[in-house]
Amino acid sequence: MGDKDVNQFMCPLPHVEKDHITISHGSGGKQTKHLIQRIFYTYFSNPILEKGDDFADIPANFSKNKPRVITATDAHIVDPIFFPGGDIGRLAVAGTVNDVSMSGAIPKFITASFIIEEGFPIIDLDRIARSMAECALEADVQIIAGDTKVVEKGKSDKIFISTTGIGFLETGVSINGASAKPGDVVIMSGTIGDHGIAVLAARNDLGFRVEIQSDVNPLNELIQSIRKASKAIHVLRDPTRGGVATTLNEISEQSNVSIVLDELKLPIRKSVQAACDILGFDPLYVANEGKVLIIAPRCESNAILDALHTHPLGRQARQIGVVEKAKSTPNVLMKTTIGGTRIVDMLSGKMLPRIC
Amino acid sequence: MGDKDVNQFMCPLPHVEKDHITISHGSGGKQTKHLIQRIFYTYFSNPILEKGDDFADIPANFSKNKPRVITATDAHIVDPIFFPGGDIGRLAVAGTVNDVSMSGAIPKFITASFIIEEGFPIIDLDRIARSMAECALEADVQIIAGDTKVVEKGKSDKIFISTTGIGFLETGVSINGASAKPGDVVIMSGTIGDHGIAVLAARNDLGFRVEIQSDVNPLNELIQSIRKASKAIHVLRDPTRGGVATTLNEISEQSNVSIVLDELKLPIRKSVQAACDILGFDPLYVANEGKVLIIAPRCESNAILDALHTHPLGRQARQIGVVEKAKSTPNVLMKTTIGGTRIVDMLSGKMLPRIC
Repeated sequence: MGDKDVNQFMCPLPHVEKDHITISHGSGGKQTKHLIQRIFYTYFSNPILEKGDDFADIPANFSKNKPRVITATDAHIVDPIFFPGGDIGRLAVAGTVNDVSMSGAIPKFITASFIIEEGFPIIDLDRIARSMAECALEADVQIIAGDTKVVEKGKSDKIFISTTGIGFLETGVSINGASAKPGDVVIMSGTIGDHGIAVLAARNDLGFRVEIQSDVNPLNELIQSIRKASKAIHVLRDPTRGGVATTLNEISEQSNVSIVLDELKLPIRKSVQAACDILGFDPLYVANEGKVLIIAPRCESNAILDALHTHPLGRQARQIGVVEKAKSTPNVLMKTTIGGTRIVDMLSGKMLPRIC
Repeated sequence: MGDKDVNQFMCPLPHVEKDHITISHGSGGKQTKHLIQRIFYTYFSNPILEKGDDFADIPANFSKNKPRVITATDAHIVDPIFFPGGDIGRLAVAGTVNDVSMSGAIPKFITASFIIEEGFPIIDLDRIARSMAECALEADVQIIAGDTKVVEKGKSDKIFISTTGIGFLETGVSINGASAKPGDVVIMSGTIGDHGIAVLAARNDLGFRVEIQSDVNPLNELIQSIRKASKAIHVLRDPTRGGVATTLNEISEQSNVSIVLDELKLPIRKSVQAACDILGFDPLYVANEGKVLIIAPRCESNAILDALHTHPLGRQARQIGVVEKAKSTPNVLMKTTIGGTRIVDMLSGKMLPRIC
């Protein structure tokens, strides 16, 4: 109040009044990024937010508070709310547990807020809450605060759940999207695109039957085994909305490097690849909810892969690429099966709305 | 995973499959409480959640972490999104700042997740984000993490915002709904019902014009002045959804006391009272977004009122009641202007949907 003024740190926002929100603004790709930078970074400007990771690292020194508090937040609007391998409740807990875990932190607490449509069956809410509790138990986190709001029928779609995770991290750790270095390897903890295709199938958008389960899982235990195996991990990131391609593009920009993938090494289920082929999708853009990309020095590769392979969620882990010095601009490239190289761009426009 | 099982702490939920969510489940009154106990307390069972305050107090000893981390979360679905005195953005920041502050903590960080309807004007998002930033500046908090999701047109209503606040509190403080004691006084920091009536007026639900502004304001500065003035505060609570009546009923139950209000002392604007009279509302059930109820020993009353009166947000503060030993059951009573006493029950059913 008084002489404080938000204008002091604001840039002008030219032409902002001409546009409208589109589905692309929620895709997790370019338009999302543009919107966030244009609106939220402008107004909420602070160094913690602007790091661009999916978690917020509350500094240790702000009140001599150690270890560091790590928090992350996510809104979940997946359609349908129940799908093979999971549901919106499991997704809401696992998604936020995973975002916190990607800092290297151990997630401990979750808050959850529910926006429910009038007329929503309580048995479904029961099922969702149970699924959240089960997932919290798996992830060893407690759901410690919540809020429940109801809107009139037709003013929302069944149920939306926003979760915030809080975890703690020892000082001195620096795992984030800006830490990838030339010479590093890129490891994927398992198969690509399972969640997105499972949700599409449940939506009956495919026009054919596939037997694909979502991979939605809390990854904190897996991450802790990897961290025990190697003290030199540079980046951890779960390739959710926008898929592996978008996530690696974000990292290449944050770290100012090029990332070169090897198409032959990408772990993709035959059923997922077949569904993608028919639909004209590239699995690299399809969302995952129980996978992690690990970037670390080449010398750590075997130790990390060994740790992954001994965990149920990492059995199909593979090295899928390497980090190189950026040529003119940071980017993601792929050595194709036919021997060429192509640019793998960030997702642009809408691909799969309401996938998480 | 493995042998962990959510069933181990679950009670059976008889007849749960017969009911559906109604607007009453989001009213903040009895049905909300019932739903939360029936579903969320059952599944998310843990001592932090079950304390029943609007904030979650992360214990100091869980990892030798001092001071205590305090967090709170809220979904905001107010309709209309812009109203006299505020908007959904200001509400989202102030609401969560206030929930954290009610523990005595100093809120420091906010996370925000946005669910936006396709077609929502970016200029409105801009205005909302700006309003959030202004409120964060007033409250001296940083918005450090966020998420943005978009749903198809017609699948939500303009914009919903969920916020989570994180604050820190020195050890040894115990301000919560279970701490009211017979002999305490009940102080209200200002006029009752301004927010609810302002939102109703903006919705054109009144059928007549009133000049009422919402009181939506971050209260953390006010709370800190009160805490400087008195080290013996027992309860702080902001009477939002469900109003003063519902909030005091919650406290009477948590503390197992009776609370006796004096109708003559209730600070209510003439315009709010007039609107309530015409609509048949009791202002005690109308939501506030910038007021705090303070319960403290009688001997602290003058010090607290003096601190309130010197702050712009507390100028109209008054003692409105006293805490007594519960007779048969804890309850809230009111000495009426005509010399009688009536029971002031918790809000039941819907009164004002989408008020916050």
